[in-house]
Amino acid sequence: MGTVTIRDVRAICTAPDGINLTVVKVETSEPGLYGLGCATFAYRTKAVRCVVEEYLKPLLVGRDASRIEDLWQLMNVNAYWRNGPISNNAVSGVDQALWDIKGKMAGMPVYELLGGKCREAVPLYLHADGRDFPALSEKIHAYLEAGVRYIRCQIGTYGGGKMSAATPPGSQPGMYLDPDQYARATVALFEKLRAEFGFEAEFCHDVHERVQPVEALRLAKQLEPYRLFFLEDLLSPEQGDWYRLLRQQTATPIAVGELFNNPKEFDFLIANRLIDFIRCHTSQLGGLTPARKLAAFAEVFGVRTAWHGPGDVSPVGHAANIHLDLATSNLGIQEWTPISETLAEVFPGCPVQKGGYIYANDRPGFGIDLDEKLAAKYPCEHPVTQWTQTRLVDGTVIHP
Amino acid sequence: MGTVTIRDVRAICTAPDGINLTVVKVETSEPGLYGLGCATFAYRTKAVRCVVEEYLKPLLVGRDASRIEDLWQLMNVNAYWRNGPISNNAVSGVDQALWDIKGKMAGMPVYELLGGKCREAVPLYLHADGRDFPALSEKIHAYLEAGVRYIRCQIGTYGGGKMSAATPPGSQPGMYLDPDQYARATVALFEKLRAEFGFEAEFCHDVHERVQPVEALRLAKQLEPYRLFFLEDLLSPEQGDWYRLLRQQTATPIAVGELFNNPKEFDFLIANRLIDFIRCHTSQLGGLTPARKLAAFAEVFGVRTAWHGPGDVSPVGHAANIHLDLATSNLGIQEWTPISETLAEVFPGCPVQKGGYIYANDRPGFGIDLDEKLAAKYPCEHPVTQWTQTRLVDGTVIHP
Amino acid sequence: MGTVTIRDVRAICTAPDGINLTVVKVETSEPGLYGLGCATFAYRTKAVRCVVEEYLKPLLVGRDASRIEDLWQLMNVNAYWRNGPISNNAVSGVDQALWDIKGKMAGMPVYELLGGKCREAVPLYLHADGRDFPALSEKIHAYLEAGVRYIRCQIGTYGGGKMSAATPPGSQPGMYLDPDQYARATVALFEKLRAEFGFEAEFCHDVHERVQPVEALRLAKQLEPYRLFFLEDLLSPEQGDWYRLLRQQTATPIAVGELFNNPKEFDFLIANRLIDFIRCHTSQLGGLTPARKLAAFAEVFGVRTAWHGPGDVSPVGHAANIHLDLATSNLGIQEWTPISETLAEVFPGCPVQKGGYIYANDRPGFGIDLDEKLAAKYPCEHPVTQWTQTRLVDGTVIHP
Amino acid sequence: MGTVTIRDVRAICTAPDGINLTVVKVETSEPGLYGLGCATFAYRTKAVRCVVEEYLKPLLVGRDASRIEDLWQLMNVNAYWRNGPISNNAVSGVDQALWDIKGKMAGMPVYELLGGKCREAVPLYLHADGRDFPALSEKIHAYLEAGVRYIRCQIGTYGGGKMSAATPPGSQPGMYLDPDQYARATVALFEKLRAEFGFEAEFCHDVHERVQPVEALRLAKQLEPYRLFFLEDLLSPEQGDWYRLLRQQTATPIAVGELFNNPKEFDFLIANRLIDFIRCHTSQLGGLTPARKLAAFAEVFGVRTAWHGPGDVSPVGHAANIHLDLATSNLGIQEWTPISETLAEVFPGCPVQKGGYIYANDRPGFGIDLDEKLAAKYPCEHPVTQWTQTRLVDGTVIHP
Repeated sequence: MGTVTIRDVRAICTAPDGINLTVVKVETSEPGLYGLGCATFAYRTKAVRCVVEEYLKPLLVGRDASRIEDLWQLMNVNAYWRNGPISNNAVSGVDQALWDIKGKMAGMPVYELLGGKCREAVPLYLHADGRDFPALSEKIHAYLEAGVRYIRCQIGTYGGGKMSAATPPGSQPGMYLDPDQYARATVALFEKLRAEFGFEAEFCHDVHERVQPVEALRLAKQLEPYRLFFLEDLLSPEQGDWYRLLRQQTATPIAVGELFNNPKEFDFLIANRLIDFIRCHTSQLGGLTPARKLAAFAEVFGVRTAWHGPGDVSPVGHAANIHLDLATSNLGIQEWTPISETLAEVFPGCPVQKGGYIYANDRPGFGIDLDEKLAAKYPCEHPVTQWTQTRLVDGTVIHP
Repeated sequence: MGTVTIRDVRAICTAPDGINLTVVKVETSEPGLYGLGCATFAYRTKAVRCVVEEYLKPLLVGRDASRIEDLWQLMNVNAYWRNGPISNNAVSGVDQALWDIKGKMAGMPVYELLGGKCREAVPLYLHADGRDFPALSEKIHAYLEAGVRYIRCQIGTYGGGKMSAATPPGSQPGMYLDPDQYARATVALFEKLRAEFGFEAEFCHDVHERVQPVEALRLAKQLEPYRLFFLEDLLSPEQGDWYRLLRQQTATPIAVGELFNNPKEFDFLIANRLIDFIRCHTSQLGGLTPARKLAAFAEVFGVRTAWHGPGDVSPVGHAANIHLDLATSNLGIQEWTPISETLAEVFPGCPVQKGGYIYANDRPGFGIDLDEKLAAKYPCEHPVTQWTQTRLVDGTVIHP
Repeated sequence: MGTVTIRDVRAICTAPDGINLTVVKVETSEPGLYGLGCATFAYRTKAVRCVVEEYLKPLLVGRDASRIEDLWQLMNVNAYWRNGPISNNAVSGVDQALWDIKGKMAGMPVYELLGGKCREAVPLYLHADGRDFPALSEKIHAYLEAGVRYIRCQIGTYGGGKMSAATPPGSQPGMYLDPDQYARATVALFEKLRAEFGFEAEFCHDVHERVQPVEALRLAKQLEPYRLFFLEDLLSPEQGDWYRLLRQQTATPIAVGELFNNPKEFDFLIANRLIDFIRCHTSQLGGLTPARKLAAFAEVFGVRTAWHGPGDVSPVGHAANIHLDLATSNLGIQEWTPISETLAEVFPGCPVQKGGYIYANDRPGFGIDLDEKLAAKYPCEHPVTQWTQTRLVDGTVIHP
Repeated sequence: MGTVTIRDVRAICTAPDGINLTVVKVETSEPGLYGLGCATFAYRTKAVRCVVEEYLKPLLVGRDASRIEDLWQLMNVNAYWRNGPISNNAVSGVDQALWDIKGKMAGMPVYELLGGKCREAVPLYLHADGRDFPALSEKIHAYLEAGVRYIRCQIGTYGGGKMSAATPPGSQPGMYLDPDQYARATVALFEKLRAEFGFEAEFCHDVHERVQPVEALRLAKQLEPYRLFFLEDLLSPEQGDWYRLLRQQTATPIAVGELFNNPKEFDFLIANRLIDFIRCHTSQLGGLTPARKLAAFAEVFGVRTAWHGPGDVSPVGHAANIHLDLATSNLGIQEWTPISETLAEVFPGCPVQKGGYIYANDRPGFGIDLDEKLAAKYPCEHPVTQWTQTRLVDGTVIHP
């Protein structure tokens, strides 16, 4: 085939499990040849779609679909201002779709283009949360029996939020956090977990940036005896320099990155070896193109990847992560969220979990498709995001 | 009056001078009490409006309009991912409008709330460009005669772009840059300017990040004898660490920041005193709330403000900048773009330039209004942004 | 086709132009499907061949040819000790051949697998040497007329070596250098070059590490007014930390890397932005796999690539460089050595120079082949390497 | 005697104990005057021999055998690219042989030329491994009773490798490691060792780089109470900068270096006092010439030597180490591998262990010879190296 050009670019929004997912479909001059990419920013779906269809589509239509690096750079700077969550997701949708197309043109899974498999399957971790310790413990036992070795353990929601009695009268309704209580409870939690499960299981924990920096330091130190696989998101992106201080005092492994959109948020963390796992949300970075470069950069410094893989990544995004994971020597682990039957129907060809590993299929591209008719049955809703309205007991808004 | 709540939030888009401007109007429970804020991201207008109306409005309606700091924090983290150009502009629109309302509630100009005037008016700089030296020279003479002392001088467009003969066959049409030619021409330009105008006039120059880092260093050194007031945007936000190297070799004053959306782009530049002027586009930062804090931070380190003030800031945004400037001890200078008659009709109450200074009026709030009916006569258009499609002569996409 | 396995691995040595070239041919289970990779270490040809055929071949035969990343890692650590010039070249031969195979399996040029073209062709620089200034000047004029803009200028051999009268009696025959004389002559050379050619041409110069560190600093400073495109290999790999001092004093662009075999030679140079161009000999790094990662790492820090491209790179190696260049956003320039007719016959499908650019062909893989029968007509010879026996006037052996 | 020139250079390969040993024999113009040097790179024997005989021999024949420093420099740069394991071993073989010759010419042991004995004998450490704790304990008791005070303790192979049940289906056969399990077992091991043996014995442990950097940090901290004499090879050479972080948190003594071939791997470790023992494999450095300089450099910073002395050092290499140890003030310890009777027959004059010390004999040179006829009875074999094919449980290749 001659030059394959971009014929259409569309953003498809669907919420089979009630989470707003956005997938970009790039159609080409070659009949039947299209690609899919994840552009999921669940809390700003319409804005991402707007950027894709109103701004990127007219920029892209008619251009050579094989020039992924060039188009990524062009999209990245097209609005002059860049590196933001809405724009990066829009760019990611196109970028991943172009890699999907490239794989189809090559008749190969994308992992082959990235250097081929350097492992058979991708080790995963799952999230376990429970209202109380028995509930959590039950989940962990079930996971371990199913062959899942890496488990992220929480009690209550992130930060253990609840309406606190100590809140001053007149406070607005919302989720209130007591970071000190949370920090103490978390240390106690891991003491109990190790007492019950020993040290064979690999446990993680996500602070979700819900403590002050010095508490992050204290918490990391206090958790050190419990040998976490990693402690996640201790600090907000704006406070990353605090990791210098953490590294002087604790050997608890540090994972960070799901909020990163901007290279200045991570370049110094990696080059100074201040973290152990970089776990960006790859569509928030701008897609596969920047993510594979970031993996290569991190490899130089002994930092491993642990890409963000929650429910607000579309199955297309999960597939892109898995393909990258399979070809990345410095993979650490992959966050995984089990895919519901409904979701698997809307997205035929999802990566498959077996025991503690995820497997890609061997079809060309990312090997995943989107049933648009079915997708249309699950329209996205856009209520005000509630869980991000989190406050300290005195009422102060904090990072959610 | 009792608690004033937010009743409505709208984004109004208008292009009286052909540039897409976006202003947010926040209406309150108090009849006739509303505020205006700038949310202008000229190249992603629709996406900003989408965020304002689809996401921020439902979050805000019914809340207490006086809690600006609280609402800013709430808006900032509401989508979890933050610090991007589209979201920051949307937040800015609301934030500035809330300050406008606050001023009206106090019966005071906003600069009074910020601490009051610490100068009578705001010194400005104007942009002078010309196809060739005589054309530029003529403009400079005119400015000087008009009492404008600070002038930013360019020849041709930024970077001196043109289609180069050395471009390889088959290259795509577009603007092609030869950074070496540009750098040499720029040194020659300032040599001529000082020969013609002496050292009384204060000259600036904007590199617009269109050279490689080492050329930025060389250029800053070569321009040092010509005593620029500042040399602007030598480096892209991603390459800010290079300023460490610049500071070792040159005393040319450094101004930077119009592209910044993320605190990690500037915190180390200021804390390490690597720059002299911070010139963010305040709506790209998220409005007046973060801009006044940034000014306070910069004051600690002897860094002065020079907020971005081009044509793609709305008059409301200009007014907000001027109010902030009036109350900021460490103001350096204000970029200014003369306001057309058309624009002044659409935005009654614009700040006024007299000679080398800009004056705010003394009406409550920012003292500026928006004639919505008139605005509607100038609808925004959204063609693909062309000027950001800039390439080196070999075809490589570069920062525009 | 099913899994394609490695059937044979051979090192083919040929010297069509009198330079020992080594190319690895990896043959697969698929009849007619093979790949070629450059393993050229001209001064240790037999040792590289020995590693390829005696050690890597038995490790590789029967393995899946598509698992490039995995096999690279396996080869890299197979002898426990690693990162040396002989072993890296052997690994490179296999690695590039596997990429060539991958491209053929995909039916695509390798640059497509790397992200597609981000420029039409690759800008090059040529080496111009002359016995004296008129001879050099003539060459430069010829190059410029041919459309070559980037030229590396030398007089005499690197370092201006000659038998010095000041050598103490009894000294061994060999090439003797007077670094001070050389440094002064070099400054004078560029003064003359700029007087004759102005500043349109882009000039480089290669110090070849033949001065002491402080002279490197002084030379870089003295050459600054002549605006070199880059000054190359000021320091030996062992003395790279001296670049910290250079960066404090000079804006002359720094290029370095052809001698690098070990990540510790470059990681700090890049992460601290101490250089402007990384110009490794990609087979000395271990092939395309580490080179593309190095390019991604360098991009983060604003460092550009300028891969080593002298006559002791085989045409297969040149092709691999060009394919990487085409897909690398942070390409700076490519060193190029015109390919003789003889060489082009032995290696059908060589990249083609037109004016100041090099073009890859669009055939699958690297698009280059090797006529083994013809190659056999040009056997390699292995005399003692003479040019590396360089001494100061007092007789001290120095870096060649 | 007049000038003694080099008449022949040969590499002799022999495997009396099943390990490929390579010794270079330099014969001189003086009948019967020859020297022996170790060039043992057990996994690339043929390539080292190729470099010695095809490249170094023609460079050296006819040259003055007494100019060791000059010839070392000449050999080091002769192939332009340098600092690799194959080339350094070849250079080492010649270098040590020249020192052996020099000693014979002086009628003195080499340690006399290096400054004379600064101790009577060299303290050693031995390696103790066992399938389980009782087996290990038995060995340690035996060592202690034999007067050996310094013992390196391991259980199972390095890293405790085994085929793990958690390996994903389809994984290749090989040795699979579970670093977390290993790290926990190692802490438990030393707890038991101190419980059984108290603190009189000096225990070491070799991590063999088989954990991730953050685990290296955690392990070093957790082992601190058990007062290791040193903890060895926590990190791969590429990740040496992580020692900065270790030094902030732990006082566990750090030994490192057997993999080093390149000065950039150790210069900053020593100059920043990030390690306590430098334990290079001296032939991998290039012989006695660079090793004695490295000892001198380390002395400046309070770093002690602990040269690598496993079974894949030839007895000639061991002798060279012992001579260097005898004359080095900042000797820390010498790794020692008991010499079998077979080996001692092939290499008459081996250093002799008595209790916890090794003694050199007092014959000229290194005092050791090689029975070439006997050596020829033990030819080297070159199967694919298996133990370096080590993978994590998910299949990722790691440093072996």
